[in-house]
Amino acid sequence: MTETHPPFSTTASAPPMRQPRRPSAATLAALLADLTPLLGDRITTAPGILEQHGHDESWHHPAAPDAVCFPHSTQEVSRVIRACSHHNIAVIPYGVGTSIEGQIIAERGGLCVDLSRMNAIVEVRAEDLDATVQPGVTRTQLNHHLRATGLFFSVDPGADASMGGMASTRASGTNTVRYGTMRENVLSLTVVMADGRIVQTGGRARKSAAGYDLTHLMIGAEGTLGIITELTVKLHGLPEAISSATVAFDDVAGAVNTVIASIQCGLPLARIELLDALAMKAVNQYSRLTHGEKPTLFLEFHGTHAGVREQAKAFAELCQDFGGSDFAWATLEEDRQTLWQARHDAAYAAKQLRPGMEFWATDICVPISRLAECIAATQLDVQATGLTAPLLGHVGDGNFHLVVIFDRDNQDELETLAAFNQRLVARALAAGGTCTGEHGVGIGKREYMASEHGDGWEVMRSIKQALDPQGIMNPGKLV
Amino acid sequence: MTETHPPFSTTASAPPMRQPRRPSAATLAALLADLTPLLGDRITTAPGILEQHGHDESWHHPAAPDAVCFPHSTQEVSRVIRACSHHNIAVIPYGVGTSIEGQIIAERGGLCVDLSRMNAIVEVRAEDLDATVQPGVTRTQLNHHLRATGLFFSVDPGADASMGGMASTRASGTNTVRYGTMRENVLSLTVVMADGRIVQTGGRARKSAAGYDLTHLMIGAEGTLGIITELTVKLHGLPEAISSATVAFDDVAGAVNTVIASIQCGLPLARIELLDALAMKAVNQYSRLTHGEKPTLFLEFHGTHAGVREQAKAFAELCQDFGGSDFAWATLEEDRQTLWQARHDAAYAAKQLRPGMEFWATDICVPISRLAECIAATQLDVQATGLTAPLLGHVGDGNFHLVVIFDRDNQDELETLAAFNQRLVARALAAGGTCTGEHGVGIGKREYMASEHGDGWEVMRSIKQALDPQGIMNPGKLV
Repeated sequence: MTETHPPFSTTASAPPMRQPRRPSAATLAALLADLTPLLGDRITTAPGILEQHGHDESWHHPAAPDAVCFPHSTQEVSRVIRACSHHNIAVIPYGVGTSIEGQIIAERGGLCVDLSRMNAIVEVRAEDLDATVQPGVTRTQLNHHLRATGLFFSVDPGADASMGGMASTRASGTNTVRYGTMRENVLSLTVVMADGRIVQTGGRARKSAAGYDLTHLMIGAEGTLGIITELTVKLHGLPEAISSATVAFDDVAGAVNTVIASIQCGLPLARIELLDALAMKAVNQYSRLTHGEKPTLFLEFHGTHAGVREQAKAFAELCQDFGGSDFAWATLEEDRQTLWQARHDAAYAAKQLRPGMEFWATDICVPISRLAECIAATQLDVQATGLTAPLLGHVGDGNFHLVVIFDRDNQDELETLAAFNQRLVARALAAGGTCTGEHGVGIGKREYMASEHGDGWEVMRSIKQALDPQGIMNPGKLV
Repeated sequence: MTETHPPFSTTASAPPMRQPRRPSAATLAALLADLTPLLGDRITTAPGILEQHGHDESWHHPAAPDAVCFPHSTQEVSRVIRACSHHNIAVIPYGVGTSIEGQIIAERGGLCVDLSRMNAIVEVRAEDLDATVQPGVTRTQLNHHLRATGLFFSVDPGADASMGGMASTRASGTNTVRYGTMRENVLSLTVVMADGRIVQTGGRARKSAAGYDLTHLMIGAEGTLGIITELTVKLHGLPEAISSATVAFDDVAGAVNTVIASIQCGLPLARIELLDALAMKAVNQYSRLTHGEKPTLFLEFHGTHAGVREQAKAFAELCQDFGGSDFAWATLEEDRQTLWQARHDAAYAAKQLRPGMEFWATDICVPISRLAECIAATQLDVQATGLTAPLLGHVGDGNFHLVVIFDRDNQDELETLAAFNQRLVARALAAGGTCTGEHGVGIGKREYMASEHGDGWEVMRSIKQALDPQGIMNPGKLV
């Protein structure tokens, strides 16, 4: 082959991303004049509301939008985005503000679209094991609604997040190992695109080979390609029997190796979570529990009565091989709720290890075979830096978190923390993993996208460019 | 809101798709001159080879490419695509030619990239339950290779398709109800884009929230966005116990309602397949079996010995409610193989119902609650038209096929068939389903894309435009 064709000579390579500027007072006034007839007092510039919408649960510096609106329908969202497009103003979707990588911070100002009033459960189709909801519905709201059906929605991040936010950040939780993340649990979406077009992605059939997978393109796009205004999600049948347990280990390696062995031998665990000794100390304090302050697995089996017994027996045998002890079983619903609420509150619990300080949560995910070494290296790194950083996570997925409790006013500590995070991500990527398993990119993991994705990063930017040429959709996030 | 912003005024609406023309003799000669130094006799214009690469297993009219090449590596594919881009020549990826909607037919001529020599199993990582393979590896080749590991690759379309082709058409098969389609079983891909760039999508971590989901964008894209040159797929542990059965029903409704009830009550079926009376007749003849010629379910349970027994008992009770009889259990490996081979050969078997005729396979997929009415209406339609059209399918997913045996020389029959297919698709879409559950779009289902996807169809075209501005990647398929 002659080398007269330079590599990629024909590439329409992605130009620098366009981003809107923070709007001038006149532009903002024009936007408000356009939208007030539609929204009335559901669009506002009240300082308290702006401030409230300028931060999430992350450590990232807040930045308030210039206005906040509260649409009631897909049609209203479409008209809002068309107006923002006309005035070249940034659009930031907002659910309940529980993101942890700054996904809703308005770095470029603009209009925050608060979807919390679009919180109707549109339809539950028990016969198809699916439900259609508006994006402001929270996961506990949906499960509360489902009580009488014998069904549940499985994805459970720590916070009581909104369904739209969970889809947008490709969220997961404690039972992903069995039921999957949002990626596996969303069947279809209604999305308002950057030009106001309303697009229905996917359908209610359980599978389809008809065209590009726009549903999965929108899941995890963090509002940078459009705003999700309706979701159809899979539901699962409540199992006949559930059995939860905690089991303590002398060291983290024993706990992790138990998890790896149980995954590799195909035990159908519904949940398997690790908390290290420091995380257990925090959880005990916060949730008034009396577990031993040792590395501990929280786990759960779902199935028939006989099946759960079989699984529990097999797991207990594995534990013995790796030094597990102090098995505490919880089969009563109330005890199980207490156990898992404590797990879900672990990040908040960690914060009380250093009262008055802030928490900074990060997560990575690696192939299961690399999990033990990755956790071991990370714990050595924590010791070496002296950070207060309980480790916990969804280890059945190869995913773990550190909740670093830090002093924002201490510049040395901030620098130590930033360098620690870079080493953590580098370790994940070197192990064939990812810089974030479930928290998303937002503004916190942007800098790692190029090294994780290589030329794939340019492909993502080309897609963004094609679908949002003005760059108004949640600018500065992800791409 | 003022209505001074016309809807979508700022849309960069997709211009008509560019497509390359069939190359002139001079252009083709220039391409060959460029690539022969790289590929030697692995690029050819031999008429027999061109003809062989101009058709798949579908009824669609063949069209041969102008040349065929047989690359050995991702790098070679990259150089091939760069040359095609330089000369503006169409690129058609080819696995083993088992597609059934004309996905590999070279309507615009061009260069067929036959990936069958890229058939190495790169690595099996039993500890992570994954494997990396080249695209020319077939599903049975992979499972043969895995024999000693206790693991298997689950996706099993009827044909012994290539892994690259299966990913490109978002294929599935008989055990999707338990293990998912290619969509759920591909972890990451290496893709050569339209400009020759080599992109790695996704990674080996079981989940990630890092950026747009390029893996799912490429799965089901039918080679229109790039060529898949490597895949990392999930493996599953072989279950401790497997039990297969067939059970006959007096009518299709009884069989379908049994499936619906078993899905709705959460029975963890590994496979549940329906063959109508005509399909059973064909299978009996072709595979020399002696089943009753009645609507029959083929099913399989995977689990522990106790679990499988529990499932079988629950299922048998359900069957009684819907008139199931003639339960035939197969627990011996050999009997199970015979049973499932017969199911996989059903399309070929159907062809013998009218010797000398051709088969024309179509598939739709609907929400499970709409399956019974959809099948009933379709069977009435078959009767009314007088077509020879056995019905079979993966009914646990709401997916079914018709294998119409037809006379290509009979224009009336062709018109009847085309009209029947349109009514079938219309019925699927009206039920909230899709025009194809697993066969893909190719050239056969293109006409239904706009009605299935609405404005989403334009979004797909915008993505195609952004990633393949010349339109050289498998032109005329899907978008």
